[in-house]
Amino acid sequence: MTVLIENAVIIPMTERNRFMKGSILIKDGIIMEAGSITATEADETVDAEGMIALPSFVNAHTHLAMVLMRNYKDTCENLQDWLSEIFPIEDKLDDEDIYQASRLGAAELIQSGCTVFADMYFRAWNTVKAVKEAGCRAIIGQTFMNDAADARFRINEIAPRILEEIGDDDMFRLDAAVHAVYTSTPDCYECAAEWTRSRGARLHTHLSETRKEVDDCLKQYGRTPVELLDSIGIFQVPVYAAHGVHISSSEMDILARGNAAIVHNPASNMKLASGIAPVAEFRKKGISVALGTDGASSNNNLSMMKEMNTAALLQTVANMTPAAAHPYDILEMATINGAKALGLDDRIGTIEKGKEADITLINTRDVNMTPMNDPFSAVVFSADRKNVDTVFCRGRKLLEHGKLLTIDKEEAMAKTEERWNDIQRR
Amino acid sequence: MTVLIENAVIIPMTERNRFMKGSILIKDGIIMEAGSITATEADETVDAEGMIALPSFVNAHTHLAMVLMRNYKDTCENLQDWLSEIFPIEDKLDDEDIYQASRLGAAELIQSGCTVFADMYFRAWNTVKAVKEAGCRAIIGQTFMNDAADARFRINEIAPRILEEIGDDDMFRLDAAVHAVYTSTPDCYECAAEWTRSRGARLHTHLSETRKEVDDCLKQYGRTPVELLDSIGIFQVPVYAAHGVHISSSEMDILARGNAAIVHNPASNMKLASGIAPVAEFRKKGISVALGTDGASSNNNLSMMKEMNTAALLQTVANMTPAAAHPYDILEMATINGAKALGLDDRIGTIEKGKEADITLINTRDVNMTPMNDPFSAVVFSADRKNVDTVFCRGRKLLEHGKLLTIDKEEAMAKTEERWNDIQRR
Repeated sequence: MTVLIENAVIIPMTERNRFMKGSILIKDGIIMEAGSITATEADETVDAEGMIALPSFVNAHTHLAMVLMRNYKDTCENLQDWLSEIFPIEDKLDDEDIYQASRLGAAELIQSGCTVFADMYFRAWNTVKAVKEAGCRAIIGQTFMNDAADARFRINEIAPRILEEIGDDDMFRLDAAVHAVYTSTPDCYECAAEWTRSRGARLHTHLSETRKEVDDCLKQYGRTPVELLDSIGIFQVPVYAAHGVHISSSEMDILARGNAAIVHNPASNMKLASGIAPVAEFRKKGISVALGTDGASSNNNLSMMKEMNTAALLQTVANMTPAAAHPYDILEMATINGAKALGLDDRIGTIEKGKEADITLINTRDVNMTPMNDPFSAVVFSADRKNVDTVFCRGRKLLEHGKLLTIDKEEAMAKTEERWNDIQRR
Repeated sequence: MTVLIENAVIIPMTERNRFMKGSILIKDGIIMEAGSITATEADETVDAEGMIALPSFVNAHTHLAMVLMRNYKDTCENLQDWLSEIFPIEDKLDDEDIYQASRLGAAELIQSGCTVFADMYFRAWNTVKAVKEAGCRAIIGQTFMNDAADARFRINEIAPRILEEIGDDDMFRLDAAVHAVYTSTPDCYECAAEWTRSRGARLHTHLSETRKEVDDCLKQYGRTPVELLDSIGIFQVPVYAAHGVHISSSEMDILARGNAAIVHNPASNMKLASGIAPVAEFRKKGISVALGTDGASSNNNLSMMKEMNTAALLQTVANMTPAAAHPYDILEMATINGAKALGLDDRIGTIEKGKEADITLINTRDVNMTPMNDPFSAVVFSADRKNVDTVFCRGRKLLEHGKLLTIDKEEAMAKTEERWNDIQRR
């Protein structure tokens, strides 16, 4: 099966500020050629005149099924107050809740040009099922919280269920997702890291999201969260850490040495009044920074288009220079840096020969994109979800002219609302 | 002609956090009833099941025709560097450029639920013509720059041309739009203010946008921009001032005494690294704060939906509390406060009996709005331009199911691109 995308403005994300008018040939889900190519025929031809072709976005930190709690008690004073509203709800969630909400969440990701996400949530076998049906990818997190005994229980009793649902599908991987230092003990982290190492996987965690988290950690352990995790060898496995809002220069050296990646979640950090992550400093220290939406209940959406815009604006004003967040830097965060953080950069994150064809077409023929002038600024500053026209995941079309092809949107919305109404009565 | 909007979730913006399920009856462009109403028949019935009905948004500061320079050299280091790129282009613009660009800009405003804007740009008779055709409203600015002699020239030679184009159309008003203290002398401001007073109009200006503007003003006049304008009596006419990023507490007292309104432009202030306006402090001092997108070349879009989201996130993190910018506060900025700033609050800005029917329907039946939970958070945090379904301006439908009814979008885009290509060759 071959697909030829013709007449696109291609941003391959292989070289700074590079773009070219050209075509992309896909064979059995793999990119064969991109740019000025020789192929003129294919089983399917997509006319991308007026479209920008980009690697599909990588949402490197979310809690997909939290779309359930979208806009629910979301004007709490801070993260801790909000979590105290959310945790009791989460205790009531069942398999069907997670399945339906994951399906809706996958639809929202695809609508904004995203084909892979790193998830951290409960009953994740349901998320695997929903995402398989949606046709996209997921790095699923086996959640860890509490202590080592609890961690062992999860490894023995829960992880196998997720792994069984994944089967031999290489669109999925199961990582360890340890919640945070304020909910998980050091030996819980150690246990999760050991399991991570044994499986050749990666470790996903929340890290230094709020000032309170850092202060409490200093009080309890005499170390910051970064220092604490370093002291117990967590950075010896590949780590991608969400937020990283309150991290000092010396802690950055620890992260850089450990080759840990930071996942920036600007909307969530702003909305929950957590603060502004020092993204420019991370990048100066050589730390790779990816981008994530966080869950829909602290954002309150899963649009990578909006997240890029927010990241660019926030970093510019926080550093008082646009040099801190040029559109190309932001696109890197949303594509290849995300792929690197999740260890998928040999497969996705750029448009080049040999990579799997996760490609998004952004329609520039809309009033908000005319004239286009600079394609990088156009995507980051002008575009929104309405401009996302077509999304391919491993060569398969998941969205076409803004319409979802693999998910019945009306059903997904109705079922999720039904579950949510039921949850509130439980 | 009567229109009945049925089954909507109405946010009337008449009372804090109030919303109700109900209907709205419009007769000849005027709201007759809203809420639980008795009317069951009308010439046209609109089923708004699943829609939130809001007063259409007021974009209280923009430069509409600057859509021409969208994404053009937009990663300059700061406002001054960027203006040095933009000013030479502006010198080349002709009537047809402004007409076509204004038409495209109006289309973009309508797509995001906006029916009125305060403009500041050249050859504004062309903007009046385009906006009349589009069917929305405009507070047009007679631009002032340089000195009093230049101001008198503009009053005598340019303003009449704009007034002639407006004619007796009460969807328009001509205000004075004085560029800024760094481009306009005190006697230019005085001349504009006197003209404003004589016409019963208002004065629009850029105010304290950057630190440099304030420092230079202090150096040149020994006063900040606010103090300078106060010293020459400018706040004795109704003023709406864009940006207000660098304004001290004592200057706020001056603005409050003068009943001047601030128009917050968060995206532009972030993008141009101008800073973060002290919106929470303005509000504490009783200063009315409206919302604007600024021009598309420093944003780089005209979406009031995105601007509300950016304003809410930015003020929350800047003040480290969501109490600084609750969704209802943001909706006020985008509706009734904008109407107040422009002196239109007796006609628009709320949904209530007797007001003109500028109403926008936001479709909550999309994946990014499900479940809805809180309608205020849903609009400010979850929604985007794709959710804007239907827009009424004085009872006339300008947008229906996302389609523009009064502007040929394809033609507007093609013509604007044609002009822009031509401008670059001039």
